[in-house]
Amino acid sequence: MNYCGHCGAPVILKVPAGDTLPRYVCERCATVHYLNPKMVVGAIPEWEDKILLCRRAIEPRAGLWTLPAGFMENAETTAQAAARETLEEACARVEIGEMFTFINVPHINQVHILYRARLLDLDFAAGEESLEVGLFDEAAIPWKDIAFRTIGLTLRQYYADRKTGRFDFHASDLLLPPK
Amino acid sequence: MNYCGHCGAPVILKVPAGDTLPRYVCERCATVHYLNPKMVVGAIPEWEDKILLCRRAIEPRAGLWTLPAGFMENAETTAQAAARETLEEACARVEIGEMFTFINVPHINQVHILYRARLLDLDFAAGEESLEVGLFDEAAIPWKDIAFRTIGLTLRQYYADRKTGRFDFHASDLLLPPK
Repeated sequence: MNYCGHCGAPVILKVPAGDTLPRYVCERCATVHYLNPKMVVGAIPEWEDKILLCRRAIEPRAGLWTLPAGFMENAETTAQAAARETLEEACARVEIGEMFTFINVPHINQVHILYRARLLDLDFAAGEESLEVGLFDEAAIPWKDIAFRTIGLTLRQYYADRKTGRFDFHASDLLLPPK
Repeated sequence: MNYCGHCGAPVILKVPAGDTLPRYVCERCATVHYLNPKMVVGAIPEWEDKILLCRRAIEPRAGLWTLPAGFMENAETTAQAAARETLEEACARVEIGEMFTFINVPHINQVHILYRARLLDLDFAAGEESLEVGLFDEAAIPWKDIAFRTIGLTLRQYYADRKTGRFDFHASDLLLPPK
Protein backbone atom coordinates (compact mmCIF):
# COMPACT_ATOMS: atom_id res chain seq x y z
CA MET A 1 0.00 0.00 0.00
CA ASN A 2 1.42 3.38 -1.11
CA TYR A 3 -1.55 5.78 -1.13
CA CYS A 4 -4.61 6.46 1.00
CA GLY A 5 -7.73 4.95 -0.56
CA HIS A 6 -9.81 7.67 1.07
CA CYS A 7 -7.98 10.88 0.03
CA GLY A 8 -5.19 9.76 -2.33
CA ALA A 9 -2.27 11.17 -0.30
CA PRO A 10 0.80 9.00 0.44
CA VAL A 11 0.65 6.67 3.44
CA ILE A 12 3.46 5.92 5.86
CA LEU A 13 3.97 2.79 7.95
CA LYS A 14 3.86 3.66 11.67
CA VAL A 15 2.41 2.52 14.99
CA PRO A 16 -0.66 4.72 15.64
CA ALA A 17 -1.12 6.18 19.15
CA GLY A 18 -2.63 3.55 21.44
CA ASP A 19 -1.87 0.74 18.98
CA THR A 20 0.80 -1.97 19.14
CA LEU A 21 1.46 -2.78 15.47
CA PRO A 22 2.64 -0.72 12.49
CA ARG A 23 -0.19 0.33 10.17
CA TYR A 24 -0.44 2.24 6.94
CA VAL A 25 -1.53 5.72 8.07
CA CYS A 26 -2.43 8.60 5.74
CA GLU A 27 -0.16 11.63 6.16
CA ARG A 28 -2.96 13.99 5.15
CA CYS A 29 -6.31 12.69 6.48
CA ALA A 30 -4.86 10.41 9.22
CA THR A 31 -6.98 7.42 8.14
CA VAL A 32 -5.51 4.17 9.52
CA HIS A 33 -5.67 1.35 6.97
CA TYR A 34 -5.96 -2.01 8.70
CA LEU A 35 -5.08 -5.20 6.86
CA ASN A 36 -6.81 -8.34 8.09
CA PRO A 37 -6.85 -12.04 7.20
CA LYS A 38 -9.22 -13.26 4.52
CA MET A 39 -11.46 -16.30 4.55
CA VAL A 40 -11.29 -18.87 1.75
CA VAL A 41 -14.45 -20.96 1.84
CA GLY A 42 -15.46 -24.05 -0.09
CA ALA A 43 -17.33 -27.33 -0.24
CA ILE A 44 -16.81 -31.08 -0.35
CA PRO A 45 -19.64 -31.94 -2.77
CA GLU A 46 -20.70 -35.57 -2.19
CA TRP A 47 -22.51 -37.86 -4.61
CA GLU A 48 -22.90 -41.43 -3.36
CA ASP A 49 -19.34 -42.59 -2.54
CA LYS A 50 -17.72 -39.92 -4.70
CA ILE A 51 -16.74 -36.29 -4.24
CA LEU A 52 -16.40 -33.56 -6.82
CA LEU A 53 -13.00 -32.04 -7.59
CA CYS A 54 -11.99 -29.24 -9.97
CA ARG A 55 -8.76 -28.99 -11.97
CA ARG A 56 -7.56 -25.40 -11.75
CA ALA A 57 -7.36 -23.31 -14.94
CA ILE A 58 -5.71 -20.35 -13.20
CA GLU A 59 -2.75 -19.57 -10.99
CA PRO A 60 -1.81 -20.34 -8.32
CA ARG A 61 -1.44 -24.08 -8.95
CA ALA A 62 -2.94 -24.17 -12.43
CA GLY A 63 -3.40 -27.75 -13.63
CA LEU A 64 -3.74 -29.20 -10.13
CA TRP A 65 -6.89 -30.48 -8.42
CA THR A 66 -8.86 -28.82 -5.65
CA LEU A 67 -12.22 -28.68 -3.95
CA PRO A 68 -14.37 -25.77 -5.15
CA ALA A 69 -13.42 -22.84 -2.87
CA GLY A 70 -12.56 -19.17 -3.01
CA PHE A 71 -12.54 -15.84 -1.21
CA MET A 72 -15.64 -15.09 0.84
CA GLU A 73 -17.36 -11.91 -0.34
CA ASN A 74 -18.89 -9.12 1.70
CA ALA A 75 -22.61 -9.49 2.53
CA GLU A 76 -22.68 -13.28 2.35
CA THR A 77 -22.44 -16.06 4.94
CA THR A 78 -19.75 -18.72 4.85
CA ALA A 79 -22.29 -21.33 3.70
CA GLN A 80 -23.46 -19.01 0.91
CA ALA A 81 -19.83 -18.48 -0.10
CA ALA A 82 -19.25 -22.23 -0.28
CA ALA A 83 -22.34 -22.74 -2.47
CA ARG A 84 -21.45 -19.78 -4.71
CA GLU A 85 -17.90 -20.97 -5.27
CA THR A 86 -19.17 -24.47 -6.11
CA LEU A 87 -21.54 -22.97 -8.67
CA GLU A 88 -18.84 -20.72 -10.16
CA GLU A 89 -16.03 -23.28 -10.37
CA ALA A 90 -17.99 -26.45 -11.07
CA CYS A 91 -21.38 -25.15 -12.33
CA ALA A 92 -22.77 -27.41 -9.62
CA ARG A 93 -25.68 -26.98 -7.22
CA VAL A 94 -25.16 -28.17 -3.67
CA GLU A 95 -26.95 -28.24 -0.36
CA ILE A 96 -24.39 -27.07 2.18
CA GLY A 97 -24.15 -29.22 5.32
CA GLU A 98 -21.94 -28.95 8.40
CA MET A 99 -18.69 -27.04 8.64
CA PHE A 100 -16.00 -29.72 8.41
CA THR A 101 -12.52 -28.12 8.54
CA PHE A 102 -11.39 -24.71 9.78
CA ILE A 103 -7.69 -24.21 9.07
CA ASN A 104 -5.60 -21.19 10.02
CA VAL A 105 -2.87 -20.42 7.48
CA PRO A 106 -1.22 -17.44 9.20
CA HIS A 107 1.81 -17.09 6.93
CA ILE A 108 -0.51 -16.15 4.06
CA ASN A 109 -3.05 -14.29 6.24
CA GLN A 110 -5.86 -16.68 5.43
CA VAL A 111 -8.33 -18.99 7.12
CA HIS A 112 -9.65 -21.88 5.00
CA ILE A 113 -13.09 -23.28 5.78
CA LEU A 114 -14.58 -26.34 4.05
CA TYR A 115 -18.15 -27.56 4.39
CA ARG A 116 -19.59 -30.97 3.69
CA ALA A 117 -22.17 -30.62 0.92
CA ARG A 118 -24.68 -32.73 -0.99
CA LEU A 119 -24.41 -32.48 -4.78
CA LEU A 120 -28.00 -32.01 -5.99
CA ASP A 121 -27.63 -33.31 -9.56
CA LEU A 122 -25.00 -34.49 -12.04
CA ASP A 123 -25.38 -31.50 -14.34
CA PHE A 124 -21.94 -30.04 -13.48
CA ALA A 125 -19.27 -28.65 -15.80
CA ALA A 126 -15.99 -26.76 -15.68
CA GLY A 127 -16.52 -23.11 -14.71
CA GLU A 128 -14.30 -20.32 -16.05
CA GLU A 129 -11.59 -21.00 -13.47
CA SER A 130 -11.55 -24.78 -14.01
CA LEU A 131 -10.08 -26.94 -16.78
CA GLU A 132 -12.23 -29.93 -15.89
CA VAL A 133 -14.45 -31.16 -13.09
CA GLY A 134 -15.05 -34.74 -12.04
CA LEU A 135 -16.35 -37.15 -9.42
CA PHE A 136 -13.74 -39.25 -7.62
CA ASP A 137 -14.00 -42.15 -5.25
CA GLU A 138 -11.29 -42.47 -2.60
CA ALA A 139 -9.06 -44.75 -4.71
CA ALA A 140 -9.14 -42.31 -7.62
CA ILE A 141 -8.27 -39.11 -5.70
CA PRO A 142 -5.18 -37.58 -7.41
CA TRP A 143 -3.29 -37.26 -4.11
CA LYS A 144 -0.04 -36.18 -5.76
CA ASP A 145 -1.76 -33.46 -7.75
CA ILE A 146 -3.76 -31.66 -5.06
CA ALA A 147 -3.33 -27.90 -5.40
CA PHE A 148 -3.22 -26.77 -1.75
CA ARG A 149 -2.10 -28.23 1.57
CA THR A 150 -5.38 -27.27 3.26
CA ILE A 151 -7.32 -29.21 0.62
CA GLY A 152 -5.09 -32.29 1.04
CA LEU A 153 -5.56 -32.08 4.81
CA THR A 154 -9.34 -31.73 4.41
CA LEU A 155 -9.54 -34.72 2.08
CA ARG A 156 -7.44 -36.93 4.38
CA GLN A 157 -9.60 -35.93 7.35
CA TYR A 158 -12.73 -36.57 5.33
CA TYR A 159 -11.77 -40.15 4.48
CA ALA A 160 -10.48 -40.79 8.01
CA ASP A 161 -13.80 -39.65 9.48
CA ARG A 162 -15.82 -41.56 6.91
CA LYS A 163 -14.17 -44.80 8.03
CA THR A 164 -15.36 -44.14 11.60
CA GLY A 165 -18.92 -43.49 10.42
CA ARG A 166 -18.97 -40.07 12.08
CA PHE A 167 -17.91 -36.69 10.72
CA ASP A 168 -16.59 -34.25 13.31
CA PHE A 169 -15.61 -30.59 13.08
CA HIS A 170 -11.83 -30.17 12.79
CA ALA A 171 -10.08 -26.90 13.62
CA SER A 172 -6.34 -26.76 13.06
CA ASP A 173 -3.40 -24.53 12.16
CA LEU A 174 -1.25 -25.10 9.10
CA LEU A 175 2.08 -23.52 9.90
CA LEU A 176 5.11 -23.18 7.64
CA PRO A 177 7.40 -26.18 7.86
CA PRO A 178 10.62 -25.32 9.78
CA LYS A 179 13.41 -24.31 7.38
CA MET B 1 -12.78 3.90 -1.44
CA ASN B 2 -11.91 6.78 -3.78
CA TYR B 3 -8.28 6.25 -4.77
CA CYS B 4 -6.02 3.33 -5.68
CA GLY B 5 -3.83 2.32 -2.73
CA HIS B 6 -1.21 1.09 -5.19
CA CYS B 7 -0.76 4.06 -7.56
CA GLY B 8 -2.95 6.85 -6.09
CA ALA B 9 -5.17 7.36 -9.17
CA PRO B 10 -8.97 7.51 -8.81
CA VAL B 11 -10.88 4.21 -8.72
CA ILE B 12 -14.22 3.51 -10.35
CA LEU B 13 -16.82 0.97 -9.32
CA LYS B 14 -17.32 -1.58 -12.12
CA VAL B 15 -17.66 -5.30 -12.78
CA PRO B 16 -14.23 -6.50 -13.97
CA ALA B 17 -14.08 -8.82 -17.01
CA GLY B 18 -14.84 -12.39 -15.93
CA ASP B 19 -16.20 -11.24 -12.56
CA THR B 20 -19.79 -11.07 -11.33
CA LEU B 21 -19.73 -8.26 -8.76
CA PRO B 22 -18.82 -4.56 -8.90
CA ARG B 23 -15.32 -3.83 -7.55
CA TYR B 24 -13.24 -0.74 -7.07
CA VAL B 25 -10.89 -0.77 -10.08
CA CYS B 26 -8.03 1.66 -10.68
CA GLU B 27 -8.46 3.70 -13.87
CA ARG B 28 -4.67 3.96 -14.31
CA CYS B 29 -2.99 0.72 -13.15
CA ALA B 30 -6.12 -1.53 -13.40
CA THR B 31 -5.62 -2.97 -9.91
CA VAL B 32 -8.85 -4.53 -8.64
CA HIS B 33 -9.45 -3.78 -4.95
CA TYR B 34 -11.39 -6.58 -3.32
CA LEU B 35 -13.23 -5.99 -0.05
CA ASN B 36 -13.76 -9.07 2.08
CA PRO B 37 -15.36 -9.88 5.44
CA LYS B 38 -13.33 -9.55 8.61
CA MET B 39 -13.07 -11.94 11.52
CA VAL B 40 -13.75 -10.74 15.06
CA VAL B 41 -12.29 -13.27 17.48
CA GLY B 42 -12.50 -13.55 21.24
CA ALA B 43 -12.63 -15.73 24.34
CA ILE B 44 -14.94 -16.87 27.12
CA PRO B 45 -12.41 -16.81 29.98
CA GLU B 46 -13.56 -19.25 32.70
CA TRP B 47 -12.60 -19.26 36.39
CA GLU B 48 -14.45 -21.85 38.47
CA ASP B 49 -18.17 -21.12 37.87
CA LYS B 50 -17.54 -17.58 36.66
CA ILE B 51 -16.59 -15.95 33.36
CA LEU B 52 -14.76 -12.72 32.70
CA LEU B 53 -16.54 -9.80 31.03
CA CYS B 54 -15.27 -6.35 30.03
CA ARG B 55 -17.21 -3.07 30.11
CA ARG B 56 -16.39 -1.17 26.94
CA ALA B 57 -14.61 2.17 27.17
CA ILE B 58 -14.91 2.87 23.44
CA GLU B 59 -17.53 3.02 20.73
CA PRO B 60 -19.45 1.19 19.47
CA ARG B 61 -21.47 0.32 22.58
CA ALA B 62 -19.32 2.19 25.12
CA GLY B 63 -20.46 1.43 28.67
CA LEU B 64 -21.90 -1.99 27.82
CA TRP B 65 -20.46 -5.42 28.65
CA THR B 66 -18.80 -7.87 26.31
CA LEU B 67 -16.45 -10.82 26.13
CA PRO B 68 -12.88 -9.84 25.22
CA ALA B 69 -12.78 -9.90 21.40
CA GLY B 70 -11.54 -7.90 18.45
CA PHE B 71 -10.37 -7.92 14.86
CA MET B 72 -8.04 -10.76 13.94
CA GLU B 73 -4.66 -9.48 12.70
CA ASN B 74 -2.56 -10.69 9.80
CA ALA B 75 0.03 -13.38 10.62
CA GLU B 76 -1.79 -14.79 13.64
CA THR B 77 -4.13 -17.73 14.16
CA THR B 78 -7.66 -17.36 15.48
CA ALA B 79 -6.62 -18.84 18.85
CA GLN B 80 -3.70 -16.39 19.05
CA ALA B 81 -6.10 -13.55 18.23
CA ALA B 82 -8.45 -14.63 21.04
CA ALA B 83 -5.59 -14.75 23.57
CA ARG B 84 -4.16 -11.40 22.38
CA GLU B 85 -7.52 -9.62 22.63
CA THR B 86 -8.04 -11.03 26.14
CA LEU B 87 -4.64 -9.72 27.16
CA GLU B 88 -5.27 -6.30 25.58
CA GLU B 89 -8.81 -5.71 26.86
CA ALA B 90 -8.64 -7.45 30.25
CA CYS B 91 -4.88 -7.72 30.94
CA ALA B 92 -5.65 -11.41 31.44
CA ARG B 93 -3.73 -14.52 30.53
CA VAL B 94 -5.75 -17.46 29.18
CA GLU B 95 -5.23 -20.90 27.80
CA ILE B 96 -7.42 -21.07 24.70
CA GLY B 97 -9.58 -24.19 24.41
CA GLU B 98 -12.09 -25.29 21.78
CA MET B 99 -13.82 -23.05 19.27
CA PHE B 100 -17.32 -22.56 20.71
CA THR B 101 -19.36 -20.25 18.46
CA PHE B 102 -18.89 -19.24 14.82
CA ILE B 103 -21.44 -16.60 13.84
CA ASN B 104 -21.86 -15.04 10.40
CA VAL B 105 -22.99 -11.40 10.55
CA PRO B 106 -23.27 -10.68 6.82
CA HIS B 107 -24.93 -7.24 7.03
CA ILE B 108 -21.76 -5.87 8.65
CA ASN B 109 -19.35 -8.10 6.66
CA GLN B 110 -18.07 -9.90 9.74
CA VAL B 111 -17.71 -13.37 11.19
CA HIS B 112 -17.53 -13.57 14.99
CA ILE B 113 -15.66 -16.49 16.56
CA LEU B 114 -15.55 -17.16 20.30
CA TYR B 115 -13.36 -19.73 22.03
CA ARG B 116 -13.74 -21.30 25.44
CA ALA B 117 -10.69 -20.39 27.50
CA ARG B 118 -9.22 -21.05 30.95
CA LEU B 119 -8.26 -17.95 32.91
CA LEU B 120 -4.77 -18.67 34.27
CA ASP B 121 -4.73 -16.29 37.25
CA LEU B 122 -6.80 -13.53 38.88
CA ASP B 123 -4.33 -10.77 38.06
CA PHE B 124 -6.61 -9.10 35.48
CA ALA B 125 -7.43 -5.42 35.04
CA ALA B 126 -9.15 -3.06 32.62
CA GLY B 127 -7.13 -2.61 29.43
CA GLU B 128 -7.14 0.65 27.47
CA GLU B 129 -10.40 -0.18 25.71
CA SER B 130 -12.22 -1.28 28.89
CA LEU B 131 -13.75 0.71 31.76
CA GLU B 132 -13.79 -2.26 34.11
CA VAL B 133 -13.38 -6.02 34.02
CA GLY B 134 -15.02 -8.55 36.28
CA LEU B 135 -15.93 -12.18 36.94
CA PHE B 136 -19.61 -13.05 36.76
CA ASP B 137 -21.57 -16.16 37.64
CA GLU B 138 -24.66 -16.90 35.58
CA ALA B 139 -27.06 -15.09 37.92
CA ALA B 140 -24.93 -11.93 37.79
CA ILE B 141 -24.53 -11.65 34.00
CA PRO B 142 -25.79 -8.17 32.97
CA TRP B 143 -28.06 -9.56 30.26
CA LYS B 144 -29.71 -6.21 29.53
CA ASP B 145 -26.35 -4.48 29.10
CA ILE B 146 -24.55 -6.84 26.71
CA ALA B 147 -22.87 -4.86 23.93
CA PHE B 148 -23.39 -7.12 20.88
CA ARG B 149 -25.98 -9.67 19.74
CA THR B 150 -23.28 -12.24 18.93
CA ILE B 151 -21.96 -12.00 22.50
CA GLY B 152 -25.46 -12.42 23.96
CA LEU B 153 -26.01 -15.44 21.71
CA THR B 154 -22.67 -16.93 22.73
CA LEU B 155 -23.38 -16.45 26.44
CA ARG B 156 -26.86 -18.00 26.18
CA GLN B 157 -25.42 -20.97 24.27
CA TYR B 158 -22.64 -21.30 26.82
CA TYR B 159 -25.02 -21.60 29.78
CA ALA B 160 -27.38 -23.89 27.82
CA ASP B 161 -24.49 -26.23 27.02
CA ARG B 162 -23.12 -26.08 30.55
CA LYS B 163 -26.40 -27.39 31.92
CA THR B 164 -26.10 -30.45 29.65
CA GLY B 165 -22.53 -31.10 30.83
CA ARG B 166 -21.20 -31.00 27.29
CA PHE B 167 -19.96 -28.09 25.20
CA ASP B 168 -20.52 -28.40 21.44
CA PHE B 169 -19.38 -26.26 18.52
CA HIS B 170 -22.15 -23.94 17.32
CA ALA B 171 -22.13 -22.35 13.86
CA SER B 172 -24.95 -19.96 13.04
CA ASP B 173 -25.95 -16.88 11.07
CA LEU B 174 -27.15 -13.69 12.71
CA LEU B 175 -29.26 -11.94 10.12
CA LEU B 176 -30.92 -8.55 10.33
CA PRO B 177 -34.36 -8.73 11.88
CA PRO B 178 -37.07 -8.18 9.21
CA LYS B 179 -38.17 -4.53 9.10
